[in-house]
Amino acid sequence: MSSAWLWLSVTELLLLAVSSKNSIRNEIFTVTNLQNVQTNITKYTPTWDSLDSRPLPQWYDEAKIGIFIHWGVFSVPSFGSEWFWKEWKDKKLSQYVDFMKKNYPPGFTYQDFAHDFTAEFYNPDEWAEIFQSSGAKYVVLTSKHHEGYTLWPSKTAFSWNAVDVGPHRDLLGELSHSIQAKTDLKFGIYHSLYEWFNPLYLQDKENNFTTQLFVKQKTIPELYELVQNYHPDIIWSDGEWEATDEYWTSKEFIAWLYNDSPVKDTVVVNDRWGKGDVGKHGDYYTYSDRYNPGVLQPHKWENCMTIDKESWGFRRNARLSDYLTMKELVQTLAETVSCGGNLLMNVGPTKDGVIDPIYEERLRGMGAWLKINGEAIYSSRPWTYQNDTLTSGVWYTKSGSNDVSTVVYAIVLNWPILGNLKLRSPQLVKESTITLLGYSQDLQWVSRDGIQVQLPDKAAVASELAWVLKITNVTN
Amino acid sequence: MSSAWLWLSVTELLLLAVSSKNSIRNEIFTVTNLQNVQTNITKYTPTWDSLDSRPLPQWYDEAKIGIFIHWGVFSVPSFGSEWFWKEWKDKKLSQYVDFMKKNYPPGFTYQDFAHDFTAEFYNPDEWAEIFQSSGAKYVVLTSKHHEGYTLWPSKTAFSWNAVDVGPHRDLLGELSHSIQAKTDLKFGIYHSLYEWFNPLYLQDKENNFTTQLFVKQKTIPELYELVQNYHPDIIWSDGEWEATDEYWTSKEFIAWLYNDSPVKDTVVVNDRWGKGDVGKHGDYYTYSDRYNPGVLQPHKWENCMTIDKESWGFRRNARLSDYLTMKELVQTLAETVSCGGNLLMNVGPTKDGVIDPIYEERLRGMGAWLKINGEAIYSSRPWTYQNDTLTSGVWYTKSGSNDVSTVVYAIVLNWPILGNLKLRSPQLVKESTITLLGYSQDLQWVSRDGIQVQLPDKAAVASELAWVLKITNVTN
Amino acid sequence: MSSAWLWLSVTELLLLAVSSKNSIRNEIFTVTNLQNVQTNITKYTPTWDSLDSRPLPQWYDEAKIGIFIHWGVFSVPSFGSEWFWKEWKDKKLSQYVDFMKKNYPPGFTYQDFAHDFTAEFYNPDEWAEIFQSSGAKYVVLTSKHHEGYTLWPSKTAFSWNAVDVGPHRDLLGELSHSIQAKTDLKFGIYHSLYEWFNPLYLQDKENNFTTQLFVKQKTIPELYELVQNYHPDIIWSDGEWEATDEYWTSKEFIAWLYNDSPVKDTVVVNDRWGKGDVGKHGDYYTYSDRYNPGVLQPHKWENCMTIDKESWGFRRNARLSDYLTMKELVQTLAETVSCGGNLLMNVGPTKDGVIDPIYEERLRGMGAWLKINGEAIYSSRPWTYQNDTLTSGVWYTKSGSNDVSTVVYAIVLNWPILGNLKLRSPQLVKESTITLLGYSQDLQWVSRDGIQVQLPDKAAVASELAWVLKITNVTN
Amino acid sequence: MSSAWLWLSVTELLLLAVSSKNSIRNEIFTVTNLQNVQTNITKYTPTWDSLDSRPLPQWYDEAKIGIFIHWGVFSVPSFGSEWFWKEWKDKKLSQYVDFMKKNYPPGFTYQDFAHDFTAEFYNPDEWAEIFQSSGAKYVVLTSKHHEGYTLWPSKTAFSWNAVDVGPHRDLLGELSHSIQAKTDLKFGIYHSLYEWFNPLYLQDKENNFTTQLFVKQKTIPELYELVQNYHPDIIWSDGEWEATDEYWTSKEFIAWLYNDSPVKDTVVVNDRWGKGDVGKHGDYYTYSDRYNPGVLQPHKWENCMTIDKESWGFRRNARLSDYLTMKELVQTLAETVSCGGNLLMNVGPTKDGVIDPIYEERLRGMGAWLKINGEAIYSSRPWTYQNDTLTSGVWYTKSGSNDVSTVVYAIVLNWPILGNLKLRSPQLVKESTITLLGYSQDLQWVSRDGIQVQLPDKAAVASELAWVLKITNVTN
Repeated sequence: MSSAWLWLSVTELLLLAVSSKNSIRNEIFTVTNLQNVQTNITKYTPTWDSLDSRPLPQWYDEAKIGIFIHWGVFSVPSFGSEWFWKEWKDKKLSQYVDFMKKNYPPGFTYQDFAHDFTAEFYNPDEWAEIFQSSGAKYVVLTSKHHEGYTLWPSKTAFSWNAVDVGPHRDLLGELSHSIQAKTDLKFGIYHSLYEWFNPLYLQDKENNFTTQLFVKQKTIPELYELVQNYHPDIIWSDGEWEATDEYWTSKEFIAWLYNDSPVKDTVVVNDRWGKGDVGKHGDYYTYSDRYNPGVLQPHKWENCMTIDKESWGFRRNARLSDYLTMKELVQTLAETVSCGGNLLMNVGPTKDGVIDPIYEERLRGMGAWLKINGEAIYSSRPWTYQNDTLTSGVWYTKSGSNDVSTVVYAIVLNWPILGNLKLRSPQLVKESTITLLGYSQDLQWVSRDGIQVQLPDKAAVASELAWVLKITNVTN
Repeated sequence: MSSAWLWLSVTELLLLAVSSKNSIRNEIFTVTNLQNVQTNITKYTPTWDSLDSRPLPQWYDEAKIGIFIHWGVFSVPSFGSEWFWKEWKDKKLSQYVDFMKKNYPPGFTYQDFAHDFTAEFYNPDEWAEIFQSSGAKYVVLTSKHHEGYTLWPSKTAFSWNAVDVGPHRDLLGELSHSIQAKTDLKFGIYHSLYEWFNPLYLQDKENNFTTQLFVKQKTIPELYELVQNYHPDIIWSDGEWEATDEYWTSKEFIAWLYNDSPVKDTVVVNDRWGKGDVGKHGDYYTYSDRYNPGVLQPHKWENCMTIDKESWGFRRNARLSDYLTMKELVQTLAETVSCGGNLLMNVGPTKDGVIDPIYEERLRGMGAWLKINGEAIYSSRPWTYQNDTLTSGVWYTKSGSNDVSTVVYAIVLNWPILGNLKLRSPQLVKESTITLLGYSQDLQWVSRDGIQVQLPDKAAVASELAWVLKITNVTN
Repeated sequence: MSSAWLWLSVTELLLLAVSSKNSIRNEIFTVTNLQNVQTNITKYTPTWDSLDSRPLPQWYDEAKIGIFIHWGVFSVPSFGSEWFWKEWKDKKLSQYVDFMKKNYPPGFTYQDFAHDFTAEFYNPDEWAEIFQSSGAKYVVLTSKHHEGYTLWPSKTAFSWNAVDVGPHRDLLGELSHSIQAKTDLKFGIYHSLYEWFNPLYLQDKENNFTTQLFVKQKTIPELYELVQNYHPDIIWSDGEWEATDEYWTSKEFIAWLYNDSPVKDTVVVNDRWGKGDVGKHGDYYTYSDRYNPGVLQPHKWENCMTIDKESWGFRRNARLSDYLTMKELVQTLAETVSCGGNLLMNVGPTKDGVIDPIYEERLRGMGAWLKINGEAIYSSRPWTYQNDTLTSGVWYTKSGSNDVSTVVYAIVLNWPILGNLKLRSPQLVKESTITLLGYSQDLQWVSRDGIQVQLPDKAAVASELAWVLKITNVTN
Repeated sequence: MSSAWLWLSVTELLLLAVSSKNSIRNEIFTVTNLQNVQTNITKYTPTWDSLDSRPLPQWYDEAKIGIFIHWGVFSVPSFGSEWFWKEWKDKKLSQYVDFMKKNYPPGFTYQDFAHDFTAEFYNPDEWAEIFQSSGAKYVVLTSKHHEGYTLWPSKTAFSWNAVDVGPHRDLLGELSHSIQAKTDLKFGIYHSLYEWFNPLYLQDKENNFTTQLFVKQKTIPELYELVQNYHPDIIWSDGEWEATDEYWTSKEFIAWLYNDSPVKDTVVVNDRWGKGDVGKHGDYYTYSDRYNPGVLQPHKWENCMTIDKESWGFRRNARLSDYLTMKELVQTLAETVSCGGNLLMNVGPTKDGVIDPIYEERLRGMGAWLKINGEAIYSSRPWTYQNDTLTSGVWYTKSGSNDVSTVVYAIVLNWPILGNLKLRSPQLVKESTITLLGYSQDLQWVSRDGIQVQLPDKAAVASELAWVLKITNVTN
């Protein structure tokens, strides 16, 4: 018995990825085209040395702030966190076990929740408007979390996707379309490589990842499908940590993505592609969740964090104190950008399809702050110092352009007593000027063991929460 | 980019098929063992010439009567028939479209029904007892119908199987176990090759079946899984008609089944393995549903038919007149067996897991009739004549043993006026005797243009519905 | 503080009873009319002496057989019996407690079941046809069982009736209409006086029935409403046993029913109107459920019994052996009618609105038997003897007309050995004849210690299950 | 036929009202006790002249701010407003009709929503803590809105209350208990006299309110029950407008409430007791919803308003812009209290039992403001002027004590340019001082065409949103 009758060819993979709505003619064209591309202009080989040599597309570093969206079947129990299934069934944490015992019949499965994922108020145009108003420059949606449920009608997730059960809509496709049609934001896709309870994955794992049933039948086909159909600007990979990138065939996928995919020139990927890869490979590094080192990083990185301190998915019973305040959010933005990172700020929509007003308030609040102070954030670069060595709660950036005389921005988190602010780090010259974003006049300052700046009457300043000093002719 | 990183090996397939409940040790043993078997005693090659040369395992012809069970998500709407999904969504028949409009919210999908497939009264031991009492010698359960939902926890049907959604039980495994533990019946598995709405299948179909995404990722893995885990005595294949057995790789599968599978010595398969195969290849032929030709067939065949004339799946709104009467069922049995067929009589359990009493009454009624008259059915063989050339409603079988003087059974469907029965077909000699099953004394008969037999007072006869004359020393 | 501002006037009660669909004009007319009626032709006073003096309307005794229908929220769990709520919550029987624990979330209430009382296949015209075909002459539907849920939109059961929750239809009104439009059957209404868990009732009970909150606000208004709106031929009262008819104000209601109601000339009531009334008062007596004394009764009575031996409501998990056979049903009919009773044979429809085919088979089977043998049943009267003193299983009736020479019917439940039947009870004369219903010729008989009758070849007789001898010129 | 057998006695009413959990002994005691009370100290007669003569219990005027809670079955669709049922079924507004068509099966009733009123996260202790933290001094919960569904196990709302369907808990009783045990807030009960779709009410209405079926069987019994069992400090009546207080027997109920009820000394009632009563009778007046006249009122009044501008019940799809800002809320409080009113600020909990964080933020924000500025609110009284005649956005109150030299509070909604505030209304003398709540030092001021006050650097002031000047020795 030959095994020849059971392999998947590359052509099949690509055909599989192409939306069945397209005609065969187009599919053939696509395949042919890709093959030509392969032969002629392939630059990257599936090795990290080669892949890591690719320059980071410029848009990503300039964007500085993005919105992360965790939405899935976990939004139905909407309890604990988006790890509900795992905590309940695998770790058997009493909080989850008790919740199920109290509220559901015995035998109720996680999949049974999908029935109540209604999304009846889901209006992606409204979402797009909110995201735009937040000042963010990109959004990243969970196309599929570790539960395996896909927010698009994946060909390899029959009856476990948002069109077949629950919303009965292509949630991903609709948001992708609205973001593109209504905003200038980039659209990224979060994708979990592993699925906690997929039997094919569990089989591979039992085999110590010497088999690749799951990768070949599920992970790789759906990554192709996502890229071919939705043209994402980011692939935000996750769920990689139990197996190597050899198992996941990540390098092969990224090579295709960089060389031949429809988004080869603009796409960026993160660093979660296999056990041990985090912080080592990929366009930018995420390290662990909520990574916020406070010191300058040698490689582009991202601080992905949550407005609800406890969870990425929406929790119906979250209290006000669980949400970061506007002040805390602006502080996190300042810390992150000063150290060379992007901030990816997470919201969890409800199972109804609504971004709760408490989230909306945070997002619009961030937008209001950035409207005044965005100059210190967008396209900025880290300065010599990240935070002031004398006064705590002051974070620096500098302007993106490489003029001789640098413009430095000092983001001041705490209004000083009597408006008198002392800064040790910037060295000024006579020609230096200091202005306050959201205030029309120049500020008075003197050099004395660093500088001392006199802020105006607070009642006259447009900004709230944090204030940005724009300092010209900084010499260090 | 090499395609080598995406094929499925045979070893993987077999590992996939093995229940994850077994230890790795056992899996390795199984694989090794199979490979040994392959090397040493492989007889059949994946060609019809080779496969069709295999002798039919004896038990199947002797059994004569089996129970077919159609159970699945279609048992939830329980309306129209088990083709509900197709009629509703593809053919858009108004009967189904209106039913959905009237009773469900817009956007409700077929998959949403699974949530209500409760099976809370499913007691496979009770089922086994009912089937045993029916006189049947085998049962065949729909492991997966065209909807794709599997009644066992298939590794390739994540979240679309009876453990993940609905009953939360291995419906197939439990019945298999009860049948084996409580009865001497054989256990067969119905399996649909195609799935109406599986995107992988639709993709292959769009490609004119030049690709085999679906076969490699779904059909073949689950057939292996079924055989390895449940050791079925029958593979009752279906849903083959849109593609050739080349596409389905049916011959390769059957070759493995005959050569190397754990049921290689006892398993029988039907004839639905690819477009054009029906009535040509396989252990026995089924032709079309409810095939009942009324004349002797040259090859072993089976009449699969339904007690509910309109549907294989249970219909909540079926009326009494939709069910075949006991009389009609006995008649169908007589016609089928006389012409060399087996009767596969279908029941549709409710979504609660119950065999409705109207079905139970038919099954036990058949058993009561067979208790008296089974001698004419089990292990019988077709006689020279199938039905009497003079008196309609008389069907013949003969005893299985090849004695010189044949014993012939005449199954009389209608009690003759004044008890006087004329038969043209049997040629008797002086030593011939005629008895009536369920009546203790010999009957009087005379030869006159065939024979005339005097039946006793009907009140003294144990049998009802149909009566069997046992005739010895028949010379033709 | 005067209590005058809180009483319910009779006029209010009647207005309450009148369907709000009628115009005010009609309501006023009705009230006026009733008051006229009261003044002029009132005959009965609210005392048992007076009420019991009313002659039984003739139709009831002539009808002999009726169909009882138990349908309600209990048809949703459809488990155990229609006493589900009581057994579960009050008696806490483990069978019920475990069923709930296994299949429902904690805290699930009985009322929550109503949500799933769909009745989507309820077709009262079909029901009417089935009942007609059964040979029954009346039907009685549970308008409200002890659960308190009303099958009609009762004004005093807001949000706990079939229009507000569940079917969203007037189940009672629709059946009443179909029975009237499609058949010549009478339509009766079962009504439970008490409600297990109604707080008003429990309050009265706690007060030792010295208060009548429940009676005044619930029981009596809804009885008026039922009579005024649906004109029932029977009020089949139940649930009376915990309190006296003084508490229930039953006599007052019946007096109104007999004197002034729109059905005063045709209506009949049973005997369940207060503690101690059973077998003493009312148009006919029911004693306990399934009352079947086997001896002649001095007062008209009814044997209300169930085809499912275990339950009045449908049970999803009932087995075939739980249903009485056709033979047992015919036997019960013979026993009941011979002793002067009517048979009220119960069916329990499903929550879908379907009369399960197993019930339909019994009903049509009874109709087939009555089509041949109804002459011995309808309008018959008890004879001198109820059953034969020699041969068991022979029950007698006589023709309804009072001719000199009585026609006696012997219902023979068991076909005698060799067709030879010995009867001790009837005394015949030379002119006497004996025929067999469903057989064309006279039978041979001789007088010998009673009589001996020779039955014909059973194969020539149309009837099955039981056989009726029609005997003329019986002298005793 | 006498009507005597159908009236409800007062004793019955009281027995009905007493919780069945109490023993009969206690009930009898209660009744006796009440009757004694009646004989001895009854002061008020059921006339408005008498009832309106009762002094307002002091606590109410001193409280100034309360929380209104609208919770009920309307919290399940949670769409449009709490008038969902009426708008949908009676007015047939397309917004509601379309919502139902899009998301629910045909025939779905309002009552069917109750099934999903889960309240699984309802934690009344948490609610109590939030309300306490808001600075409010009382809460008012909808015991029953116009839908008729009761949040307590009402004896006259069998199967249409929160214990029987939905939460399966006494929502009202639990909150009442938590408020009492955990806070010093008063607990009030909102109660709708009418019910949109109660057949008894509709019957009375059809009869032009000449009958009182509904009042006697529903409204009055449940008001007695609420008062007897939950001892509310406020009866917030509503739904009165279609009928007179004669129909509702409101005056009789209030007379009992004032004379004999367990809360006779502390309870206050609003003015919604019958057509034409609004703004004329009752302890305080509410006029229409969101009444905020801007000028001093001659009688104690209340501004009941909503944080969600569009709805009293929670709306799942409310946007941030639908919620009043903290600034707007403080402004409304200032306007209301200055003119002699109390503010009743409404929140709508979710069907899960959660006060959404956006509401919690508003409530805690109000509490934070009151912590600094409450001196100007609690126990304050209107001053000579309500708002400044020169500078808009300045509202006045004065201290509650009646000292010779009045302390006046000026609530300043807008921080003046350069901190220079001009006030025309207060006349000061030399000894007068002006301080700013939340700021430690006296302010500088001069008299010039009224007064001019110099506010300090805003950065040094604790308060936000609005600022309170405390002015002593005001002479006018």
